[in-house]
Amino acid sequence: MSIQFGPEYVRAIAPYQGGKPIAEVAREFGLDEAKIIKLASNENPLGMPESARLAMQQAVADIGRYPDANGFDLKAAITAKYDVPAEWITLGNGSNDILELAAHAFVQPGQAVMYSQYSFLVYALAAQAIGARAIVVKAKDYGHDLEAMAQAITDDTRLIFIANPNNPTGTFIPAAELEAFLGRVPPQVVVVLDEAYNEYLPAELQYDAIAWVRQYPNLLVSRTMSKAYGLAGLRIGFGIAQPAVTDLLNRIRQPFNVNSLAQAAAVAALNDKEFLQRSAQINAEGYRQFTQTFDELGLEYVPSFGNFVLVKVGDDEAAGARVNLALLKQGIIVRPVANYGLPQWLRITIGLPHENAAFIEALKKLLA
Amino acid sequence: MSIQFGPEYVRAIAPYQGGKPIAEVAREFGLDEAKIIKLASNENPLGMPESARLAMQQAVADIGRYPDANGFDLKAAITAKYDVPAEWITLGNGSNDILELAAHAFVQPGQAVMYSQYSFLVYALAAQAIGARAIVVKAKDYGHDLEAMAQAITDDTRLIFIANPNNPTGTFIPAAELEAFLGRVPPQVVVVLDEAYNEYLPAELQYDAIAWVRQYPNLLVSRTMSKAYGLAGLRIGFGIAQPAVTDLLNRIRQPFNVNSLAQAAAVAALNDKEFLQRSAQINAEGYRQFTQTFDELGLEYVPSFGNFVLVKVGDDEAAGARVNLALLKQGIIVRPVANYGLPQWLRITIGLPHENAAFIEALKKLLA
Repeated sequence: MSIQFGPEYVRAIAPYQGGKPIAEVAREFGLDEAKIIKLASNENPLGMPESARLAMQQAVADIGRYPDANGFDLKAAITAKYDVPAEWITLGNGSNDILELAAHAFVQPGQAVMYSQYSFLVYALAAQAIGARAIVVKAKDYGHDLEAMAQAITDDTRLIFIANPNNPTGTFIPAAELEAFLGRVPPQVVVVLDEAYNEYLPAELQYDAIAWVRQYPNLLVSRTMSKAYGLAGLRIGFGIAQPAVTDLLNRIRQPFNVNSLAQAAAVAALNDKEFLQRSAQINAEGYRQFTQTFDELGLEYVPSFGNFVLVKVGDDEAAGARVNLALLKQGIIVRPVANYGLPQWLRITIGLPHENAAFIEALKKLLA
Repeated sequence: MSIQFGPEYVRAIAPYQGGKPIAEVAREFGLDEAKIIKLASNENPLGMPESARLAMQQAVADIGRYPDANGFDLKAAITAKYDVPAEWITLGNGSNDILELAAHAFVQPGQAVMYSQYSFLVYALAAQAIGARAIVVKAKDYGHDLEAMAQAITDDTRLIFIANPNNPTGTFIPAAELEAFLGRVPPQVVVVLDEAYNEYLPAELQYDAIAWVRQYPNLLVSRTMSKAYGLAGLRIGFGIAQPAVTDLLNRIRQPFNVNSLAQAAAVAALNDKEFLQRSAQINAEGYRQFTQTFDELGLEYVPSFGNFVLVKVGDDEAAGARVNLALLKQGIIVRPVANYGLPQWLRITIGLPHENAAFIEALKKLLA
């Protein structure tokens, strides 16, 4: 049969390649799972918080029932933490779900979606999946060029994705710049502010995005619990926006998109300040471990505001793939970023001190 | 602000109304959660299988990690059970995810999606969400009229949803009729055969849909683990189709759409024959309990092949809503189906014997 199904724009998509799972690397390279170190997916190296594990145990008895489609308890916890009404909250199967819902809810095929070069690949995938036209604005110093982005907005632009901090480069847009940009976006264009790495920002850089949501009816702030909160395996994220935006997301959201255990665990994790603080502290220490090494080795890296560092491991176009493969063979999983147009670079998630040390030792040997 | 975001077809969607959660009914009616009986969402009244609970416990340690985007272990279990290659399998965040992926992957705005009157509401929602034109074929005896459906296929039809058994009516299409229909569908039209209630069919009605998948490159069989397998709260379903179909679904699937615990639990549940048998047996007994009562009371019902019965509780247009509210006040949750165009009817999920008895007693009093 030579029949092709589906629209051309769907057939053209190259699926997302996540960090390789530990079990997969063990199979491929004949390694012992227990000895593999994964610094590939910006996960919290502490794992899930104990508070969330206990909350999950309470919820297990009801697994035969569908989850609460309205997420009553979790929305109440978000309301309490961020002081927004429940009607301003959309729960997602990870923040990936929020990003895709935004594309589906606000953009028709042929209309434009804007994002920055070197920003999260899911923005491009979400645009492709609906046959939207992508406006990819050239990065400045590996981060968002908001001036260029503001100027590139067209009449048919319906959605702009901004990641702050940005993944995979780790760059950060100061609050004042971001606020000025929001003021320049036409009111009919929805801005998704993806704050997946917000919890790693030092206190002096934190800003009040919720205040902007109150001011701008076209702003959707996206948060994930897969990073600092340590719940990647459960799939939970959320969006905060005014009802005109939230209402549309809810119309196309799969009613039971967030499983029961994720909802229960998220309530506990949201309130676990001690865990967040410890996570941020371990991250700051690991960041120093990495950057001191890179400085020592004379490797270029992008100063990072997330839980990862983008580092240039060679000057040739195969450098990232070569070093990545050599690390994989030693049981160290990091993230190649050639698919982001960065073939000389690798993105390294900050792990526990001994994991960081193992990576550093292996890298030093490889580059010696 | 009077700005409206998003396409008109998204703004026109009325979100899905699932069965009311027990906690919500307790809040609304001031009832004790422990005394509420929920027969509203076709869940397995036994809850999750013990085998799945144990498998989940093993997986909890890795919750800080992203799930396996490729679902290696679960696909291996499906491969072993259904004798299909891993490349033929798509995992979904519940089978709802498979249904929506099919709409997104195969249909462009303006093209047609076909389904039967009185079939699962998610078909209509999935079509609306992408701005597709719906061809709703009139039901015959509350079930699919396949002859009329075959005749209604247009040049721009891209997707046909068939539920067997059907929800919310419980009707069943015998294998020979279904096979004849598949032979009449043009090869460029994808047929989604939604077998959410397959496990409740008696052995003599079971048919080999996988053999049809081998024969028809345009057939996608959808299965859920939210019903007989007792895992509704975890969100897990899957689709089986030839690679030309599966490949497109995978291009637009969110890479981490299925959480880690759902994957682990599903592997165990798939192989738990004893649990499935027990579930089917309890269901058959409850079906007799219900239908004997309906016969006794002279209530019309649609003979059901699922784990629920559609029963007509009055002749006026408000009958379903009235009886539903009266039951809610007594802490019994069933499903009104006015949104399916069946305002005189209620759909009752078959529960445990004492739950069924409580519903029967309440119904008898109400109708006396």
